Amino acid sequence: MGAEYARQRLRFRPKKIKNNRYRLPATGLPVTSSFRYQQLENQLLDAINSQRLRNGERLPSVRSLCQQHQVSKATVLHALQRLEAQGLIEARPRSGFYVTQRLPALNTPQATALQLSPGPVTIPDLLLDIMQRGAAFDLVSADARLTDTTTGVVTLNRSISRALRRARGDSAQYYDEPAGLAALREQIALRLAQRGYAASAADLCITVGCQNALFLALMASCEAGDAVAVESPGFYGALQLLQQLNLKVVEIPSSALSGMDMDALADALSRWPIKACIVSPAYSTPAGALMPAAARQRLMALAAQYDLAIIEDDIYADTAFTRIPDPLKAEDPDGRVILCSSFSKTLSRDLRLGWIAGGRWHERIVQLKLVTQLASGRALQQGVADYLADGSYSSHLRRQHYRLRQQRDQLMEQLQRWPVAVNLSQPQGGLTLWAELPANTDTHALYSTALAQGIVITPGPLFSASGHYRHCLRFSFAHEWTAARQQALTTLGELLAAAGAKP
Amino acid sequence: MGAEYARQRLRFRPKKIKNNRYRLPATGLPVTSSFRYQQLENQLLDAINSQRLRNGERLPSVRSLCQQHQVSKATVLHALQRLEAQGLIEARPRSGFYVTQRLPALNTPQATALQLSPGPVTIPDLLLDIMQRGAAFDLVSADARLTDTTTGVVTLNRSISRALRRARGDSAQYYDEPAGLAALREQIALRLAQRGYAASAADLCITVGCQNALFLALMASCEAGDAVAVESPGFYGALQLLQQLNLKVVEIPSSALSGMDMDALADALSRWPIKACIVSPAYSTPAGALMPAAARQRLMALAAQYDLAIIEDDIYADTAFTRIPDPLKAEDPDGRVILCSSFSKTLSRDLRLGWIAGGRWHERIVQLKLVTQLASGRALQQGVADYLADGSYSSHLRRQHYRLRQQRDQLMEQLQRWPVAVNLSQPQGGLTLWAELPANTDTHALYSTALAQGIVITPGPLFSASGHYRHCLRFSFAHEWTAARQQALTTLGELLAAAGAKP
Repeated sequence: MGAEYARQRLRFRPKKIKNNRYRLPATGLPVTSSFRYQQLENQLLDAINSQRLRNGERLPSVRSLCQQHQVSKATVLHALQRLEAQGLIEARPRSGFYVTQRLPALNTPQATALQLSPGPVTIPDLLLDIMQRGAAFDLVSADARLTDTTTGVVTLNRSISRALRRARGDSAQYYDEPAGLAALREQIALRLAQRGYAASAADLCITVGCQNALFLALMASCEAGDAVAVESPGFYGALQLLQQLNLKVVEIPSSALSGMDMDALADALSRWPIKACIVSPAYSTPAGALMPAAARQRLMALAAQYDLAIIEDDIYADTAFTRIPDPLKAEDPDGRVILCSSFSKTLSRDLRLGWIAGGRWHERIVQLKLVTQLASGRALQQGVADYLADGSYSSHLRRQHYRLRQQRDQLMEQLQRWPVAVNLSQPQGGLTLWAELPANTDTHALYSTALAQGIVITPGPLFSASGHYRHCLRFSFAHEWTAARQQALTTLGELLAAAGAKP
Repeated sequence: MGAEYARQRLRFRPKKIKNNRYRLPATGLPVTSSFRYQQLENQLLDAINSQRLRNGERLPSVRSLCQQHQVSKATVLHALQRLEAQGLIEARPRSGFYVTQRLPALNTPQATALQLSPGPVTIPDLLLDIMQRGAAFDLVSADARLTDTTTGVVTLNRSISRALRRARGDSAQYYDEPAGLAALREQIALRLAQRGYAASAADLCITVGCQNALFLALMASCEAGDAVAVESPGFYGALQLLQQLNLKVVEIPSSALSGMDMDALADALSRWPIKACIVSPAYSTPAGALMPAAARQRLMALAAQYDLAIIEDDIYADTAFTRIPDPLKAEDPDGRVILCSSFSKTLSRDLRLGWIAGGRWHERIVQLKLVTQLASGRALQQGVADYLADGSYSSHLRRQHYRLRQQRDQLMEQLQRWPVAVNLSQPQGGLTLWAELPANTDTHALYSTALAQGIVITPGPLFSASGHYRHCLRFSFAHEWTAARQQALTTLGELLAAAGAKP
C-alpha cells in the first residue's frame, strides 16, 4: 500500500521527488482484502459498463466523489488510478477524468487460422529487409527526419560524459564483472521493487538491450527443437530469435485489448510439449494490449502446471500513460519468470543497455553472457546509474507519458479520417497501435509502393510466424507528428484507397 | 611495398603521421620475388643461426650495413624490421639493434597427451571462478590497484563525450544499422588494408568485443555437435564458447614460438570431420607465439583441402612490438577466414567494441547480430571512429608498444631470479607469456594459496579442454610493474619453493 500511495502522490504533484528517496515497506505482499477504494472502483466500473457514464463523459470531480461516497481524497485517487490503468478512464490536465472514447472492438485473431501446432519459423526476405532498415518505428525514412533534441537524452549524455571523465584510464585495463555494474543493477532493482518485485542487484544481469535479454533467456531455458508459445500478433524480434535458434513456434491468438488468449494457451499446452512462453503483459507490440489481472493469474497457474519458463518482455512497461503495471515477475514464487527489459523504448535506443532477471536460470544466464560478450561497458553503465539515481529518469518518463498520449490521440484522429475503413486498438501505453484494414488489403504490396514514396510501413505479417495479418498494419506514435509524418499518413491512406481497399 | 615502406618510415620517425593519410597502392599483392632486402635478411639470419652473431650481441649499425652490402638505408631498415618482427633481433632506443636473448627452448606439448579426438569441453568450477573474477590479467586484486591514468584512454573518452554531445537527442529514437556505424567500419577497413587485407566497410560488422565476434563466427559456421580444432594451450574463452554451444573440441598442440602445429592439425583433419579451426596467428595467448609464413600457408592449404572455416582471433595483432603482422584473412581467396578482433587489448576493455570480417558468412553473421542484440551504440562508435581518424589510436599504439616491451623485460628478469626453475616463452607482442614450472608443480592448489594472499594467478589448465598444463602459468605484462605487483611475484616464487617445486 505504501508504495502504491507514494506513486499516486507523485503523479498528482508535479514536484520533483527523488527516485531513490521512497522505498517499499518491509512487506511487499499484494493486497487482496476488499478496501474502500475497491468498492468505489467497482461502482464506477458498473456505471461505465452499464453506460450510465457514457463514452467521453466527464466523471464527477474528486471532491464530489469524496462527499458522495464518504471517503478520503486518497481513496478516490487510488480508485481512479486503477481505472485509468485499465484504460477505462483518462485524466485530462486541468480538467478532470473522462470515460475513454471506445472504438468498435477489434477482431480477436481466429485460433484455427494460426500456427497452433509447433512448427519452424519462416520469415520472408521482405520482412528481414524491413527489420534491417531499423526504421520500423518511423513512417518517414532517415533523410526526411528533423533533428529531435530530447531534453532527457541530452541530460543522459551529459551524465555518461561525466562518468567517462571520472573513469580516466582507470577502467580501461579491466573488464566489468559479467553481471554488470552493481550501481546500475541497484537502481533497476529499486524501480522493480516499486512495482511489487522485491529484486536485489544480485538477481539482475545487464545485457545489450532487451533483444539480447530475450536471446539469453531462450538460450538458458530451451534447447534446439523445443517449442515456444508466443503472442499472435506478436513481436517479430522474438520470432526471428526462435528461427535462428532452431526453436519451434506455437502462435497463441492475442487480443488487442487483453493480450494472449489464456483458453488458447491452455488448449495448446494440453496438446503439445511446450517449453517456454514469451509474453508481454504490459502494452505488448503491436496492439498495446494490457493483460488483466485474471489472465495473469491464469498464466502463472498454467506455467506451474506445465512447468513452463515464462519469458516476460517488460520493455514497454515504463511507457504506461498512467500507473506502471506490476510485472508477472512480482507473482513468481518458483522463479520461473525471466523478466527482460531495457531503456530503448523510454530513453534511448542508442544506449544498448538492458537487463534480465533470470530467476532459476540466473547463473546460467550470467555464464552465457560471459561467453558471448564478456562484459558491459562500465563508464556507460555508471552514467545511466547516476541518471537514474538523481531522478532524471523519472522526470523524463513523466514528460514522455504526456507526449506519447498526445501523439497517440493525433495518430488515431488522423487514421479515423482515412478514406478507408480502419479498426484501431486503443493502447494505454507502449509506442504502437494495431490497425485492421479491409480484408482485401495487401500490406505486402503496399510496402513497396509506399517505400517508393519514402514512406516506411510495418506490414501485419511481420507479427506472425505463418504470414497472417496481411490486411493489418502497425502504427507507431513514438515520434512527433511533424508535417512530413502527417503528409506520409495522408499519402498512405490515398494509396490504400487507390489500391481498392473497400471503405 | 608502398604501405610497408610507409610503415617503416613511420616507425623510425617519431613525427605524428595521420593514420588516414597514407593508403595502399591499388595492387595489394604480396611480394614474392627475391629483393635485395631479402638477401640481406637471409645473410643476417645465417649469422644469427650459426652464432656468428651471438645472443645479445649488437648488430653493425645501419650505416655500416649500407656500406658493407652496398644497399640503401631503406633496404637495410626493411630487412631489420622483418627480423625484428620474427623476434630474432630487438631495437633498443638510441642504441641500435641487438640479437634477442634466447632462453632455453620450451617444450612443445605432446600430441599424445592431448584431446586429439573430438570430445566435449569440460571446465572445472575453479576455472569459471577465475574467469568470473575478470582479473585473469592482473596479479593483484582490485583493492591493491593504483589509479592508472592512460593518456590514450583519456583522449578516447573525450572523443566519445564529444560524439555524445553532438548526438543530442538525435540518435535516441533510432537503432543503428545492424552491421554497425559506417564511419567506424571504414576506419577499421583502412587499418586492415594497411596489413594486406583490402577490406571495405561492407565486409565488416561491429560486435561487442572480440568474444562476441568469436561467438557469432561459431554460430554462423558450425552446428551443435560439430568438431572444432583449437590451439593447445589456447584461449579459454574459445573453449567456454565451444562448451556452451555444444560443440566438440580437438586440441592441436601449439608451440610457444610458432603457434599451432600444422603436422598435428593435418593428422587430426585426416582422421575426423572437423568443421572449423580457431587460431590466433599473431601473439596468441598464453605464450604469445607468432605463426611463421610457411605454417600460415600450410594452414590455408589444409583449410581449402578439408573445407574448413578458419576463425582468426586477431585481437593481439596491434600489440606487436614492431611490425604488425598481416592477418590470415589477407590470403583468403575463398572467403573462408572469419577475422575477429577488438580494441580491448590495445585501447580499453571497457569500450566493448569489436569487429568481425565474416567472409562467406558475413550476411548470416549480421543477421545473427541483429537477432541477438539488434545494434551497437552509435555515439560510442562515432567517438571511436573520430579517435581513429585523427591519428590518436596510432600514437597510442606507439607509446603502448614501448611500454609493453619494457614490462615484458621486467617480468622476465624477475621470473628468472625465482627460487624455482622456470622456462619462459619470449613473445614479441601480445600481453602475456607462458611459464613452464617443474613437472611436480600443482598450479590448481597454488591458486587458492595465492588468492589467500591477495594474488590472482592464471593456472595452466585454464588453457586446455582436458585439464593439461597443471605445471604451467600464464603471466601478463599488461600492467606497470608497481611495487605491489613485484612483491606479489616474489611471494608467488616463495610459495612455489615452499610447496616443494624442485629447482
